[in-house]
Amino acid sequence: MSALRIGIAGLGTLGQAMVNILQTDGTLLAKRSGCEIKIVALSSRERNKKRSCDTTPYRWFDNALDMADDTEIDVVVELIGGANGVAKELVESALKHKKHVVTANKALIAEHGIALAKLAEANGVTLAFEAAVAGGIPALKAIKHGLAANRIFKVRGILNGTCNYILTHMWNDKRSFEDVLTEAQKLGYAEADPSFDVDGIDTAHKTAILTSLAFGTAPNLSALTIEGIRGVTLQDMEFADDLGYVIKLLGVAEKTDAGILQRVHPCMVAKDSALANVSGVFNAVEIEGSACGSLFLEGRGAGGMPTSSAIIADVIDIARGIAGDAFGIPTAAMEPANFLALDELESSYYIRLNVIDKPGVLAEITGIFRDAGISLKSFLQHGDAPGEMVFVVIATHKTSEANLRKSLTAIASKDSVKEPPFTIRIES
Amino acid sequence: MSALRIGIAGLGTLGQAMVNILQTDGTLLAKRSGCEIKIVALSSRERNKKRSCDTTPYRWFDNALDMADDTEIDVVVELIGGANGVAKELVESALKHKKHVVTANKALIAEHGIALAKLAEANGVTLAFEAAVAGGIPALKAIKHGLAANRIFKVRGILNGTCNYILTHMWNDKRSFEDVLTEAQKLGYAEADPSFDVDGIDTAHKTAILTSLAFGTAPNLSALTIEGIRGVTLQDMEFADDLGYVIKLLGVAEKTDAGILQRVHPCMVAKDSALANVSGVFNAVEIEGSACGSLFLEGRGAGGMPTSSAIIADVIDIARGIAGDAFGIPTAAMEPANFLALDELESSYYIRLNVIDKPGVLAEITGIFRDAGISLKSFLQHGDAPGEMVFVVIATHKTSEANLRKSLTAIASKDSVKEPPFTIRIES
Repeated sequence: MSALRIGIAGLGTLGQAMVNILQTDGTLLAKRSGCEIKIVALSSRERNKKRSCDTTPYRWFDNALDMADDTEIDVVVELIGGANGVAKELVESALKHKKHVVTANKALIAEHGIALAKLAEANGVTLAFEAAVAGGIPALKAIKHGLAANRIFKVRGILNGTCNYILTHMWNDKRSFEDVLTEAQKLGYAEADPSFDVDGIDTAHKTAILTSLAFGTAPNLSALTIEGIRGVTLQDMEFADDLGYVIKLLGVAEKTDAGILQRVHPCMVAKDSALANVSGVFNAVEIEGSACGSLFLEGRGAGGMPTSSAIIADVIDIARGIAGDAFGIPTAAMEPANFLALDELESSYYIRLNVIDKPGVLAEITGIFRDAGISLKSFLQHGDAPGEMVFVVIATHKTSEANLRKSLTAIASKDSVKEPPFTIRIES
Repeated sequence: MSALRIGIAGLGTLGQAMVNILQTDGTLLAKRSGCEIKIVALSSRERNKKRSCDTTPYRWFDNALDMADDTEIDVVVELIGGANGVAKELVESALKHKKHVVTANKALIAEHGIALAKLAEANGVTLAFEAAVAGGIPALKAIKHGLAANRIFKVRGILNGTCNYILTHMWNDKRSFEDVLTEAQKLGYAEADPSFDVDGIDTAHKTAILTSLAFGTAPNLSALTIEGIRGVTLQDMEFADDLGYVIKLLGVAEKTDAGILQRVHPCMVAKDSALANVSGVFNAVEIEGSACGSLFLEGRGAGGMPTSSAIIADVIDIARGIAGDAFGIPTAAMEPANFLALDELESSYYIRLNVIDKPGVLAEITGIFRDAGISLKSFLQHGDAPGEMVFVVIATHKTSEANLRKSLTAIASKDSVKEPPFTIRIES
């Protein structure tokens, strides 16, 4: 039996889990692969750190870049991270040296995926990145292979476990964003600098990749509106609950005749929807296709073991010779797309206003919506405190984002409105 | 651009949908496949039936078997159905003539899949049957490819849309099994003879296939306990609701050190579980793996379009040259498994008894459970009607099926117990 020889660059939680799985389940994986999946080399910044896996049987590279042209390595697994720097250099160099590359690096793929896929094509090797989106959920393979017969209309998902953990616990435990974030940091579910997660950037990278696979066009991060979850309050969750919704951070990509609209922002989803019931660190991806209808996938979106599941699946695809094109089709077959600005979104909206409780305020606000042709589904003043601040919570019927923004600007300019209006889009 | 030439045998709803999709989306599918997917021939019992698709551009075969050795056909798509007869003959003959075969035929694969896979291997062609399980949900590809890095512990699913439709509507509309079945037959969701669906046979075929893919062993229908949904009453659903459960027909396959246990029967699942929220004709598959943890897939399990989604995906895999082994591994790499009898199941149980309301009856029943070492989680007499029939509803803690059956036999023998005890297993 031949062997597929692997070099792993980066030995954090993920790299260690991968080594452990290949050591424990080697026989089974060899049977499935048709050849031995053989770790031959490891690399990390620090060699003598305490790790959960045995690193001694393998060659050690202090410099990961040296793996790229090593003649004993067939597949480089890049687990370093970051859109640029060593990760990018290593992947480029490995592909140029005709080595297959498997990576979990969403930033790298979202920003440089097409250039790298071209490099892979030119060198007749595979670039694979199932682990870059939704961890243990084989969402990319589902789109590339399972749903290959479909025109995809829409992909959306809960793609960041940190945000979903925070939102879930804010609501379940009736606590503030800051409070739950601090706890998540203690538990290792959030980074010391959480901005990459809570500001939606990580979700945006994953959404851009999903967009590319679903619609056959290059990832386009710059055409993606990003709002994180810092503005979401427990009070919003209570208002959402009253309206029949749960608040989730979603990445959404839709294709219509007009073009592709990509966005990452907190959404209200119906309580009885599948997305609403995705709790804690779990991720989910929902895909609407012309033939399959709606497909919903839920699983563990992060962590060493689930992410290793995706990485090793890519390695097994390579061993079996069935990996296919990085983005499902050759880069030459991709088509430029018309990316739409968020202004063109048609959505229903939840709006939270902080206003002074005095006669005429509500008439002023409803008048602005009336003049803009925005019809309201629900309009509630919370509290009764003449002369003081009260919340007004509004749910609109469908309107365009542009129209809504114009109305909100008008509303914000009123003396009785004391804070910028806060909006959450309602996803049907 | 070259072409992959398709012959479709069977032009029911499914065959017609497939023709329509290939006609409508040919350009997109060619881009994804790297070649044109070209229908060249059709076959059905009646040529001149009114159909939703245009059949005139293609060669017509009155006898589907003639497709098998036709030199202009590369892939035979078998949509005739049935474990034996023409379907089996056609698939065998096509494989022998070195044609790829794609089929939606779960009975055929569950009963003869290994023999057919061997035939495909011997002739260097592909046998693919994604459409045989869970329609538009790419569950088989998820197990074969997406989760290839996992030791699978358990697969379970809602695999029959007819049963799920009936159970959903019984509960939502508070109607009897017979009543909803009649409606489902009118709506085309159930056959005139519904036994294949409601008696669990269809679910059993699909479960046997999932077992095979998940655990790397040949499908074994004979080692599968099958109970359908005819015995489930609206009252059971009410009792289930009181206990925090919903009733679903599940196919379940589990692997432990002792062996593989396969079963199809009504289950109680927790109200807040993902499976409980799968409604109407939707299907779902839940997989537990060593690395991925739990993965949940939900989508449309039947119907022309969703099933065509799966069939055409298999065809595209063939066009791309990435279909791989029929059962995920070569048949020679499959291992015989120890299949366990249902007696060895460890489960919690719901039991409905119909007893005479008189002093001492409950002590008699609880005494039998005590003597068997079965501890009870809940024990409720519904109603208060001295000397008349009342329901006693029991939920047990975990015990073995064998132990439970012995106790129920003892209970059934009591004079005050007026109907055979009815049990539903509680799935955690």
